[in-house]
Amino acid sequence: MQQGVITLQTPPAVFASACIGGGKEHAGPLGEMFDAFDATDTFDKPTWEQSESELQRRTLCKALSKAGLAETDVDILFAGDLINQCTGSAYGLLDFDIPFVGLYGACSTSAEGLALAALLSDKFPCAAVVTSSHNCAAERQFRFPIEYGGQRPPTAQWTVTAAGAFLVSAAQRGPRITEVLLGRSDDSGITDVNNMGAAMATAAADTLCRFFRETKTTPQDYDHIATGDLGAEGSSILRELLATEHITLGENYQDCGVRIYDRERQDMHAGGSGCGCGASVLAGDLLPRLSRGELKNVLYVATGALMSATSVQQGLAIPGIAHLLHLTSACKQGGR
Amino acid sequence: MQQGVITLQTPPAVFASACIGGGKEHAGPLGEMFDAFDATDTFDKPTWEQSESELQRRTLCKALSKAGLAETDVDILFAGDLINQCTGSAYGLLDFDIPFVGLYGACSTSAEGLALAALLSDKFPCAAVVTSSHNCAAERQFRFPIEYGGQRPPTAQWTVTAAGAFLVSAAQRGPRITEVLLGRSDDSGITDVNNMGAAMATAAADTLCRFFRETKTTPQDYDHIATGDLGAEGSSILRELLATEHITLGENYQDCGVRIYDRERQDMHAGGSGCGCGASVLAGDLLPRLSRGELKNVLYVATGALMSATSVQQGLAIPGIAHLLHLTSACKQGGR
Repeated sequence: MQQGVITLQTPPAVFASACIGGGKEHAGPLGEMFDAFDATDTFDKPTWEQSESELQRRTLCKALSKAGLAETDVDILFAGDLINQCTGSAYGLLDFDIPFVGLYGACSTSAEGLALAALLSDKFPCAAVVTSSHNCAAERQFRFPIEYGGQRPPTAQWTVTAAGAFLVSAAQRGPRITEVLLGRSDDSGITDVNNMGAAMATAAADTLCRFFRETKTTPQDYDHIATGDLGAEGSSILRELLATEHITLGENYQDCGVRIYDRERQDMHAGGSGCGCGASVLAGDLLPRLSRGELKNVLYVATGALMSATSVQQGLAIPGIAHLLHLTSACKQGGR
Repeated sequence: MQQGVITLQTPPAVFASACIGGGKEHAGPLGEMFDAFDATDTFDKPTWEQSESELQRRTLCKALSKAGLAETDVDILFAGDLINQCTGSAYGLLDFDIPFVGLYGACSTSAEGLALAALLSDKFPCAAVVTSSHNCAAERQFRFPIEYGGQRPPTAQWTVTAAGAFLVSAAQRGPRITEVLLGRSDDSGITDVNNMGAAMATAAADTLCRFFRETKTTPQDYDHIATGDLGAEGSSILRELLATEHITLGENYQDCGVRIYDRERQDMHAGGSGCGCGASVLAGDLLPRLSRGELKNVLYVATGALMSATSVQQGLAIPGIAHLLHLTSACKQGGR
């Protein structure tokens, strides 16, 4: 019998978080949540890849300064991003003298890192998790350089320029990670890189079904259920897939990619995507609301699409993955 | 005070391992250690990237069959590789219905995955770790397609076509992981992708110095010390760097990249490199010798170079990282 949902006996707290975004993210409906932004998206660096690294560096610095900690107070650093060989993380976090665990979970990295930080909180007293995406770095890698001006279909999502950083410790106060469920990779059958939401929806459905079945709960047992970046198309597919399993997602379900932009005013097609999408909404919106007790009981499901430009050119379908965290308010520990 | 070397209270066993290689690897001095090989390096697939995926799939199947286990007996799967977005792992392991944690540690992935599997062995009773590299997939991604026939300088290493798979459990018998030390990323200052050994040597030196200092041991306390893929150039730099810290690596130190090929007969310049280099030597040579009691006390340090082709083209230096495992014989548990 395979290990599924893991309940943390001493649920660690996500005791500090920070997010920094680009211009479009700051201009969106959640713009106020960012700790800082750069309207030029360059973050004072000469290449988009270096801009993304700088974004990670600044975001971790911000989380540490919010907590009043130095890098030497952090025992382990989990990080990853979307670009080739995760150089956004490798170069961005090079200045920090902290044992480094590189991850690749595409847009699921925030939940993957936080799950590992939580599961290892008995061995590493203080962990940091950082992830990012940058529109210009990701688009030229996975699709076309922005300067090419390619036309995007209605299902296309806009890679978010943002990073999220989190500090996790069982000894601190704050919103708790009470349960985690690691996802299984899933062949979506989708080959269209302009329809990432559809490619990840089956993985999100698999993880949520397993979670509700194992915990004997329903979506109505939670104040809020967030997926990381399915966008409008993917989240609508997720609702349909869960409905076939007799699980009804209500008004309490929202996708971070749908929330982060004003799709009409900002012309964002199916919404936001990228590691930085879910991560910044979690860091800047969900965790602060959990801290204040406005939310008590949240499921955060970060979804990732595990293809490369090469695998897509070779005609392979996009594998999806979704990792889940059950977060509870600082004001009400442990239960549902 | 940062958490450094972690001693596992219940040291888990690496109770099964497997390795599969390509033609050049089978023709090398350690050729007999491979469970299987394909002299064509294609593994019956139409592209090199798909060949690498197939290599991972077959190697995990082999490890499971050696242990007499099914995929449903495995609770968590750690995997990663060198190619863009780790598609070797994502596609190769898609058939396995096991919760999937994607890693990016370049050639340090074997030790990174085994360290996480060991540290989480109280939460996941059985973990699998898989990693690979493929010469043709890696060379066309990081340097030039093989067909181009570019000339290689003497410091260049040959990316190994091989995969290693490992099964870890605290409830099983076999060589134990008694201590782990996760590495810090390190700016080597090296910008030459044909001198990866030099780029990773500083990280290996940092990790080994920290380990010897914290555990108050010397290289002479171990039967064998292995680095993953520094090659001739990098391992010679490592010896020099440690000598400046008054640490002398003796005859018991060998680099897996130096051992895997006959450098003269096979014209392999500075030796082998790649995730599959250290992983296959660990799976096919070191662990079996630990199982038989021929080795009792081993340090395995897998080194990774965290650059991408893009970061190198942009003139950035190559960051290095090195994760360490202390392994003890099945016949002599726990101590040095």
